[in-house]
Amino acid sequence: MSAVVDECVFCRIIGGQIPAEFVLKEAEFVAFPDINPKARVHLLVMPTAHIRSLNDIDSQDAGFGQRMLSFVARAAAVSGVSESGYRVISNNGPDGGQEVDHLHLHVLGGTLLGDLV
Amino acid sequence: MSAVVDECVFCRIIGGQIPAEFVLKEAEFVAFPDINPKARVHLLVMPTAHIRSLNDIDSQDAGFGQRMLSFVARAAAVSGVSESGYRVISNNGPDGGQEVDHLHLHVLGGTLLGDLV
Repeated sequence: MSAVVDECVFCRIIGGQIPAEFVLKEAEFVAFPDINPKARVHLLVMPTAHIRSLNDIDSQDAGFGQRMLSFVARAAAVSGVSESGYRVISNNGPDGGQEVDHLHLHVLGGTLLGDLV
Repeated sequence: MSAVVDECVFCRIIGGQIPAEFVLKEAEFVAFPDINPKARVHLLVMPTAHIRSLNDIDSQDAGFGQRMLSFVARAAAVSGVSESGYRVISNNGPDGGQEVDHLHLHVLGGTLLGDLV
């Protein structure tokens, strides 16, 4: 597992230095509400390890992606939006609008979502 | 692998009955341009097997998600947007705006993308 990065706001949330209400919290992944929600349900799902973006996915083990996507589906289920539907968004790098350099997936639901961009 | 579904437009594209210019095409995943692009680069990445949505991710083997996300990163690289950045979007179910019931990821880049929704 990558080291916790002191200046990373998500590492600090995962480590408990910044409070958050975790919807799901496991050793490898966590889910908590975005502080600036764009839908009734708006979670951030991320690995507890500090991985920068999807560009670094190949640094992870062969089961990492499956476990992360399975965790996303469970976070959606816990939030009651599995069947009504949800959108998963991963912003990577400058044009993608990535604001924190710690891989994370937005999970939005509970609202009929609009166009892609 | 799930059977090809005759009435699925994505299965028909994968099978060659509907033409598409594949950016990447492998046995398990393909990437081709969205016919209604929302950014300079707008790819659809999907498994060749007919999987309905992320809700069905647990039906796949333990390496599936990692291979799919790695394929997404390679499709971004082939399109020249790895470093400039890109957004990956998966719509699941009605509220998510999923239009084709075959799991697919939008990969957008080459443009400074706007807000999430």
